[in-house]
Amino acid sequence: MTTGLSSLQPVDSGDVRLANLAVVLRQVRRAGPCSRADIAAATGLNKATVSSLVADLIERRMVREVGLTDGRVGRPATMLVLDGTAYAAIGMEVNADYISAVALDLAGAQLLSWRRSFAGLAVSPDRAVAATAALARRVGRRVERDGRAVLGLTLGVPGLVEADGSVHLAPNLAWRGLDLRSRLAAELGKPAYPIAVDNDANLAASAEYRYGAHAGTPDLAYLTGEVGIGTGIIAGGRLLRGARGFAGELGHVQLDPAGPQCACGRRGCLEALVGITAVLRRVVPEAFADRPPTDWEPEVAEVVRRARAGDSGVLEVLADVGDRLGRGAAIVANLVNPEVIVLGGYFVPLAPWMLPAAQNRLREETVAADAGGARIVASALGQRAAAAGGAARVLEEVDSGALPRMA
Amino acid sequence: MTTGLSSLQPVDSGDVRLANLAVVLRQVRRAGPCSRADIAAATGLNKATVSSLVADLIERRMVREVGLTDGRVGRPATMLVLDGTAYAAIGMEVNADYISAVALDLAGAQLLSWRRSFAGLAVSPDRAVAATAALARRVGRRVERDGRAVLGLTLGVPGLVEADGSVHLAPNLAWRGLDLRSRLAAELGKPAYPIAVDNDANLAASAEYRYGAHAGTPDLAYLTGEVGIGTGIIAGGRLLRGARGFAGELGHVQLDPAGPQCACGRRGCLEALVGITAVLRRVVPEAFADRPPTDWEPEVAEVVRRARAGDSGVLEVLADVGDRLGRGAAIVANLVNPEVIVLGGYFVPLAPWMLPAAQNRLREETVAADAGGARIVASALGQRAAAAGGAARVLEEVDSGALPRMA
Repeated sequence: MTTGLSSLQPVDSGDVRLANLAVVLRQVRRAGPCSRADIAAATGLNKATVSSLVADLIERRMVREVGLTDGRVGRPATMLVLDGTAYAAIGMEVNADYISAVALDLAGAQLLSWRRSFAGLAVSPDRAVAATAALARRVGRRVERDGRAVLGLTLGVPGLVEADGSVHLAPNLAWRGLDLRSRLAAELGKPAYPIAVDNDANLAASAEYRYGAHAGTPDLAYLTGEVGIGTGIIAGGRLLRGARGFAGELGHVQLDPAGPQCACGRRGCLEALVGITAVLRRVVPEAFADRPPTDWEPEVAEVVRRARAGDSGVLEVLADVGDRLGRGAAIVANLVNPEVIVLGGYFVPLAPWMLPAAQNRLREETVAADAGGARIVASALGQRAAAAGGAARVLEEVDSGALPRMA
Repeated sequence: MTTGLSSLQPVDSGDVRLANLAVVLRQVRRAGPCSRADIAAATGLNKATVSSLVADLIERRMVREVGLTDGRVGRPATMLVLDGTAYAAIGMEVNADYISAVALDLAGAQLLSWRRSFAGLAVSPDRAVAATAALARRVGRRVERDGRAVLGLTLGVPGLVEADGSVHLAPNLAWRGLDLRSRLAAELGKPAYPIAVDNDANLAASAEYRYGAHAGTPDLAYLTGEVGIGTGIIAGGRLLRGARGFAGELGHVQLDPAGPQCACGRRGCLEALVGITAVLRRVVPEAFADRPPTDWEPEVAEVVRRARAGDSGVLEVLADVGDRLGRGAAIVANLVNPEVIVLGGYFVPLAPWMLPAAQNRLREETVAADAGGARIVASALGQRAAAAGGAARVLEEVDSGALPRMA
């Protein structure tokens, strides 16, 4: 499209300035260290405008100068980079057995990554909101103690999330019709920063697309490997949300009508066959006897230990689970043809023993040769992908012009 | 995004003029009848530029004047509409049992819709290309006899189509690695107009999105109901193609490992259970005895006749097929959350007896309440959706600036 034709809407001058601040911010994120002249050249803004916008961003402590460079043609120029010192973006995840939080600075560097046990199914939604808010407050206090302002908080949930941040259904937390965004905001005392809620797999897929080992792959799917199995789909470089935001429910595709009961009320859904509790019930059934279900990390570590020791029963279970997961992956491959299918959550430590069977089954059940080019890989982001994706979403909003209010 | 910032690439002046011609053409398509002043106001182009561009489009016989209007504020203005008289866009579909063609004029009005029997599995790829080219030539001669120039031809194929127009795999035509676009172009004597090949379901979904009863629905899926079952997915207003263009292969998701043999070599794929030959084998098995498989229209008409007459065996088969189709639709609903799932092809005449069971099963197997808002409907475009979508694709290319060369 040619310059000057793509925007048919009038834009008021305040909006123009905010939009231009965001253009400069994105350019520094993409290309920094860079000079004011570099920014003018890359964006088409004139140099005086760029200087004024940069001054504004420096005053907001979003951009800083890093001294002169003289290793280039022409006069030495003052170089600019993102200022990581003044802000924090918070991402969180509440899942069936844990709550986690990641804070990133404005430049995307990780400030903290916390996780605490949580008995999602054993507590009421009120208690769950309170526990989430308690961790959010601790994160907020920590970053504020370091002199940072919170840019926003985005919370990931393993379930169907409406556009307004309410949860339509989260089977593994037994939530239905929960106005989570409003309740979390109220519990946090209606903070000045924006709060958002999204599906955990959507946030994790966004994190993979932005920061993962396959960042920038335009057709990418992410499968959460928690108690539930959610899918985040990046198609043509955009998150696929669907009409009501409910896309990605691979976990509730029925693979076996005679299979085990699923938390959603049906039988034989993919997640009832390959979710982490399904795996653990087969390998460490004793873990289900003596305590409420919270944080399966120790049990997963035990499965890994036995697999490493060559326990043939465990290896058989993991290969079988990998095979079923491959059937689910083939549905994704046949329907949306991703280049990479990233496994997250508890699948990451278990991947060495699941991946070969999963990849074989994926190839067998995808109609295109070689699974249409799709490979299954374990996430390099580990279990923090969803929370990191939440924090990244906050940064994306800032980059899109939702700049924090000036103090 | 603000004016002047969205394009970071230099554009040469010839490109600018072509792009601006396309901007004016799209505006006349969207808003015609409209005046030059209307176009200037809507596009931000100045009036002198608009006048020059309109003169060019009139000379190209793409836009025409329709006289003055004085029913508006200010001076009477000469109004402009698309000129439907000078061009034709050709869309075609080659399927397992028929070849079809639709021609549209530049304004999108249908000039012709033809269909001929074809025994896809009984002939070689060479013969198939020759038969397709023969029908294309007949269409070309017809529109040229009416004084129209051909803008382009897009052919739909029930299979996996690469970006270069070659067919990776079309199981129900037994094609594998067929360089269809080049061979069709050669067979047609390398015409001056562009030739493209795409998946039939993709083209049909595009036609539904542009012309169907649910046009403009940003999250929409189309299921072909032919010998094979293909899916075209519009997600967020864009066709979902996937990494290699192989998205939408719902027909080869395995529903029943013990099910009947599928043309793809696997067992129990959705299309082996609900494709039209699977239906006809159960209702009119005698049709498979005495002739090569070509054009199932008469047999489908017989099924419709028996269903109308209340034949309980036929009604049971159609409800059963509807139920299985609902399982397939639920996979689409769970994974991409469309608002509408449009059934095409032979499903259109059979829909009255299949839809209730399909919709019930869809609701039961979708984790979101009420199937996440998805409804299954029969296409109002009937069996010509893919060919019409091919012709519409040609018009989209013109609207994007691929204007025909001046004679």
